[in-house]
Amino acid sequence: MIPRGFDRSEYEVRMARAQGEMTARQLDAVVVTTPPNWRYFAGFATQFWESPTRPWFLVLPREGEPIAVIPTIGEPGIARTWVADIRTWPAPRAEDDGVSLMAQVLGDLPRKFGRIGWEMGRESIIRMPIADFDRIRAACSGIEFADASPLIWRLRMVKSPAEVAKIERACQIGSAAYAALPGQLSIGMDEHEVARLFRAELTRQGADAIPFMAVTSGAGGYDQIIVGPVDRTMADGDVLFIDLGCTFDGYFCDFDRNFAIGRIDDETRRVQDIVWRATEAGIAAARPGATPADLAAAMVSVMSDAGATGGNVGRLGHGLGLQLTEPPSNMPGEAVVLEPGMVMTIEPGMDYGNGKMLVHEENVVITEDGCRLLTTRAPREMWQVG
Amino acid sequence: MIPRGFDRSEYEVRMARAQGEMTARQLDAVVVTTPPNWRYFAGFATQFWESPTRPWFLVLPREGEPIAVIPTIGEPGIARTWVADIRTWPAPRAEDDGVSLMAQVLGDLPRKFGRIGWEMGRESIIRMPIADFDRIRAACSGIEFADASPLIWRLRMVKSPAEVAKIERACQIGSAAYAALPGQLSIGMDEHEVARLFRAELTRQGADAIPFMAVTSGAGGYDQIIVGPVDRTMADGDVLFIDLGCTFDGYFCDFDRNFAIGRIDDETRRVQDIVWRATEAGIAAARPGATPADLAAAMVSVMSDAGATGGNVGRLGHGLGLQLTEPPSNMPGEAVVLEPGMVMTIEPGMDYGNGKMLVHEENVVITEDGCRLLTTRAPREMWQVG
Repeated sequence: MIPRGFDRSEYEVRMARAQGEMTARQLDAVVVTTPPNWRYFAGFATQFWESPTRPWFLVLPREGEPIAVIPTIGEPGIARTWVADIRTWPAPRAEDDGVSLMAQVLGDLPRKFGRIGWEMGRESIIRMPIADFDRIRAACSGIEFADASPLIWRLRMVKSPAEVAKIERACQIGSAAYAALPGQLSIGMDEHEVARLFRAELTRQGADAIPFMAVTSGAGGYDQIIVGPVDRTMADGDVLFIDLGCTFDGYFCDFDRNFAIGRIDDETRRVQDIVWRATEAGIAAARPGATPADLAAAMVSVMSDAGATGGNVGRLGHGLGLQLTEPPSNMPGEAVVLEPGMVMTIEPGMDYGNGKMLVHEENVVITEDGCRLLTTRAPREMWQVG
Repeated sequence: MIPRGFDRSEYEVRMARAQGEMTARQLDAVVVTTPPNWRYFAGFATQFWESPTRPWFLVLPREGEPIAVIPTIGEPGIARTWVADIRTWPAPRAEDDGVSLMAQVLGDLPRKFGRIGWEMGRESIIRMPIADFDRIRAACSGIEFADASPLIWRLRMVKSPAEVAKIERACQIGSAAYAALPGQLSIGMDEHEVARLFRAELTRQGADAIPFMAVTSGAGGYDQIIVGPVDRTMADGDVLFIDLGCTFDGYFCDFDRNFAIGRIDDETRRVQDIVWRATEAGIAAARPGATPADLAAAMVSVMSDAGATGGNVGRLGHGLGLQLTEPPSNMPGEAVVLEPGMVMTIEPGMDYGNGKMLVHEENVVITEDGCRLLTTRAPREMWQVG
């Protein structure tokens, strides 16, 4: 039984690391606005983020305690977290939705560097109207708004053992649900019905939520992996592809599986084996000191040797955690070096035939001397339906 | 059976209306980057948005066809929509993730007003790194980046009959799942187990996804409505509250229900009846020509007459559609006037006792002469468990 939430000490360590990085990067504070960063730094979990109406601000000063600057509706929820300093305004308030309050809070912070970091950079967004962001920026004269995303990703990229345990639980839930699926599917089934059955099985297995599921199918393969299900009936010779991001206590798994619908042809079987072996190579290459580019090269090597000309998804895996995908990316030019606690997808894809592809994916955590598989490894031959 | 997707004509009408508004608001184009606006204007549906790695841009010029400026991985998916003009770059590409391509596309647009609208205003975000937004803004010299959110919300606020049908289907799924729940619950059950059973029932009833579910419980009421489930066992005398935003074909319902766990006390029953009657008053007030402020006033009137001192959620309902909450808000000062096709929640909440509250919610569509309930009306007395 994996406990939900974290001990207070986990958040204190995150805050201390953030503050150390702020000094190193010459920031007086970091402001976060997005669901995963609220969860990471404050331990605040809600699906209320689906409502775009109200911005929420968590101010992490370089010294001292975090400050929540939030709509009144959020006060009871934040009061249950470790964040004690809560400032509220009665949102929604069209004429001033947190703008003057944030300008005041930021203006009152001790100033050493004259720089405050926001979620401005790669793989980051700011969850508030940018017109209001511009207003706060204009109101904070003498303070430079800088990009805090390298700091945030540096922290979040390396998972604690408690975080890894939650990701592993999500992977186990997904693995058990995938394994139960072949017996529930049949030739002639619609993609929407596949999705419905899989969602039901995931819920039975204990998934908290299923923010990402892609279902697609096609004769001998598929031409994309991010859209679907659609109104399409699976036929003999199809490959069914499912990609899954379900969560346990906020942490994601992200891995796919391929299913042979009836009798798939020999070329599809050949490509299946190549991509399976490319995954093996990626797992074998995942170790501290290696780079994500090394992982990509190991996978590409297996596929190139077999005559592949590349895929179009742009990378061969990535980090994951509180989000379905996180830095780093398994691709040439990625500067990060792998270290213990990083959780990565190993995700080779191979184009073949007329615009068809097969994509495989597993999740691993980097350990002291290599990596440990968090997913139950896909069988070398596709699971068979019908 | 409600069909999935829309006829091409639905998108052509949306585009034509957008272009008319652009002329009226002196914009040469509107750029959208977020999942609901991609779905609204392009008909592009995916859960791949969970990955924050790549920005996607849909450019809607004041004249001519929409232009998709997207990562290569998205091309096969967009090719299935009505959008024919697709420009791609091989994302992720750290040094230039769509920035130069977007600057070029925007620079090449016919220029009359020198203004391009983005999702900059209320209840809107821009889904891309703001540092890159600033770069595109700097690269588009002579073009003002303006707020397109009033234009976008003006369009999206009034739903077509095909959109209302999808929202109604989501409401029916939610209504059927709520009705099935009392027989599955019992005193002593944990909130997480309640959520698991409800998710399973929603999936059985046909929900595509469950992006929002809040579960909370407490003796005679609850102190907030956006956090939970948590590790808490329901006891005799509790009220269980569930709020739900499930989707059918991308369209949300958003309504809650209250359940009496064992024997609730007389004060809770009294407040239950007041809030139920406030909901009736809100539904009765919902008609073309009324304002959302009128709806709020009708609900508040019932509760004030009964001695209520107000709630802390800031408003008494809102629009909904492709998002859980959309403009307008049922609160004083809201400028919008209701018209046929607007879909609204009717959501009174009443504080009582020591920081407890009860909140009710139904969904309606404004018709020519009043409104039509899309949810199955909650019973006057709470559903009973145990």
